[in-house]
Amino acid sequence: MSKFWSPVVRELTPYVPGEQPRERLIKLNTNENPYPPAPGVGAVLRDFPTDHLRLYPDPESRALRQALARELGVTVEEVFVGNGSDEVLALAFHAFFCQARPLAMPDITYSFYPVYCRLYGIERRTHALDDQWQVDLEAFGPDCGGVIFANPNAPTGHGHGRDAIAGLLERVTESVVLVDEAYVDFGGESAVPLVARYPNLLVTGTFSKSRSLAGIRLGYAVGSPELIEGLERVKDSFNSYPIDSLASAIGIAALEDREHFEACREKVITTRERTRRRLADLGFEALPSQTNFILARHSEFDAAQLFVGLRERGILVRHFGSDALRDFLRISIGTEDEMNSLIETLETFCR
Amino acid sequence: MSKFWSPVVRELTPYVPGEQPRERLIKLNTNENPYPPAPGVGAVLRDFPTDHLRLYPDPESRALRQALARELGVTVEEVFVGNGSDEVLALAFHAFFCQARPLAMPDITYSFYPVYCRLYGIERRTHALDDQWQVDLEAFGPDCGGVIFANPNAPTGHGHGRDAIAGLLERVTESVVLVDEAYVDFGGESAVPLVARYPNLLVTGTFSKSRSLAGIRLGYAVGSPELIEGLERVKDSFNSYPIDSLASAIGIAALEDREHFEACREKVITTRERTRRRLADLGFEALPSQTNFILARHSEFDAAQLFVGLRERGILVRHFGSDALRDFLRISIGTEDEMNSLIETLETFCR
Repeated sequence: MSKFWSPVVRELTPYVPGEQPRERLIKLNTNENPYPPAPGVGAVLRDFPTDHLRLYPDPESRALRQALARELGVTVEEVFVGNGSDEVLALAFHAFFCQARPLAMPDITYSFYPVYCRLYGIERRTHALDDQWQVDLEAFGPDCGGVIFANPNAPTGHGHGRDAIAGLLERVTESVVLVDEAYVDFGGESAVPLVARYPNLLVTGTFSKSRSLAGIRLGYAVGSPELIEGLERVKDSFNSYPIDSLASAIGIAALEDREHFEACREKVITTRERTRRRLADLGFEALPSQTNFILARHSEFDAAQLFVGLRERGILVRHFGSDALRDFLRISIGTEDEMNSLIETLETFCR
Repeated sequence: MSKFWSPVVRELTPYVPGEQPRERLIKLNTNENPYPPAPGVGAVLRDFPTDHLRLYPDPESRALRQALARELGVTVEEVFVGNGSDEVLALAFHAFFCQARPLAMPDITYSFYPVYCRLYGIERRTHALDDQWQVDLEAFGPDCGGVIFANPNAPTGHGHGRDAIAGLLERVTESVVLVDEAYVDFGGESAVPLVARYPNLLVTGTFSKSRSLAGIRLGYAVGSPELIEGLERVKDSFNSYPIDSLASAIGIAALEDREHFEACREKVITTRERTRRRLADLGFEALPSQTNFILARHSEFDAAQLFVGLRERGILVRHFGSDALRDFLRISIGTEDEMNSLIETLETFCR
């Protein structure tokens, strides 16, 4: 604690991301894609004119936004981009949720949301998941300063369909509903087609998961032009050029390769379903997942001990300390080989 | 104006960066370096393992911070990095200047500072430059929530020496003094060696100017470990991974090439001094500059008209609309050839 800090800083509880280990481990802890980005990304790096880096990038990132607009079937005025979807989310909290009324969210969802609330002094109201570990959309009503949840949700893996989201938007019309679709490409149904009908819907997405580009930091939001303008006002009061020239070119190259994208996500989905069955065979309750991870608990074996045992054998998964999730492991979907190693190691503990 | 915006967003006046033109112009408007980045940057792009981009970068950016610490003669705990120095500045405003007392700054300085104040609801108090267009350090006293100025200052070009900054720090001890050294490598004297003596001194810097990397978005801050920890708390409540893997490797490559760095900045300084003499020959008052730009006004010719005339002939400089700067042009230092074109074009107007 320093006397030089702003009062708000003293109260912060920063987000703690999953570990980025230096040693060589089977890394199933931060939901990275086990497959490389599209081959075109390598071509961008080889061919990029280095001299161009002396110039500022386009502050509006129009080329990248146009590529996203084409991919998502919206207009460029409906697309915002940022330095990872975490930055997009932070700017959205500032732009829309600094309201007199509290922000409504599930009690179990992406754990960065409460951190943003503390950063911006936003009161939050949480609603319990239902007894299937699913976001209870019926719990959200119009009496709030906004609604946010991940869909599919993290770290539980369940996603609601578009009709259910539309039902929520029929009730909550006077504040922003933010649907965080970081994991949607692994089996969820995107709410992006609803943007044209609901001016208060903001959908966020990322290149970190299904595009295999966590290392390059690209995220986006899709919403009505008035919401995008609100985000731009905050962004242009914070950092004029959040997207560097290389990141923009890399993002465009990734979007252009639909075949690679489809092949990678199908492999992840296939491996996920196989892993889930094998976890069940070992006595785990593995929640259904529309993401690239599985949340699983064992009726007999302690999750914290399993986490330590796996780590000792070179396999890193995620264990959350919160009361609600203490019994679970969150396991990112790796390659078939990596998941075979996981299952074989778990077999030595659980049989 | 949208009913969905947070109240604070309605009051914002975003920063407007210099134009990034699409047509081919002699671009002397955003203080970019006319010389390419270090050759090692190209090698990074050619050799970077693309597959590595599927993984998140190091959230602490330790390798880049270590390289900066070596370069600047400080410890890694005294270094913070961000997505351009604009992001570093924004996080510093949040971390240190959200105080009950106003933030003190010169009335003419980097025009992003008042924008940050509006974003974070910080009251500011401005002090006039002296009659030589220099920051009047004597005007700043202890009765403030912090002090910020650029040194050398923008867009005026004058920089105070280290002893003068130390004198200020003897008076202002209870709040943060932020010295923005974006341009220091073109002839200013850095305050970084004072960090060890003054725990409330924060010095920011950028790779955009002297390192020819505006396109890659890298900035940094140097300060006592307690100030760096304050910045990290805000950063980790905003975006865990602001520096992508490629940007980090590129920044390290740029820092490693001292010879290239020295050669480029010496060329810029030589061209600046030559340009200043030639502008004086044309009847301009060109302020002395320790930066890579010159602020100049002509006693007879209107700056706005000169701006338009230059633009029509393919040369882009910066003209600010504010009352205090209306008579001036801010001219970035380009190559010798580019400055020859500028002077030859101005000759057609001014002789």
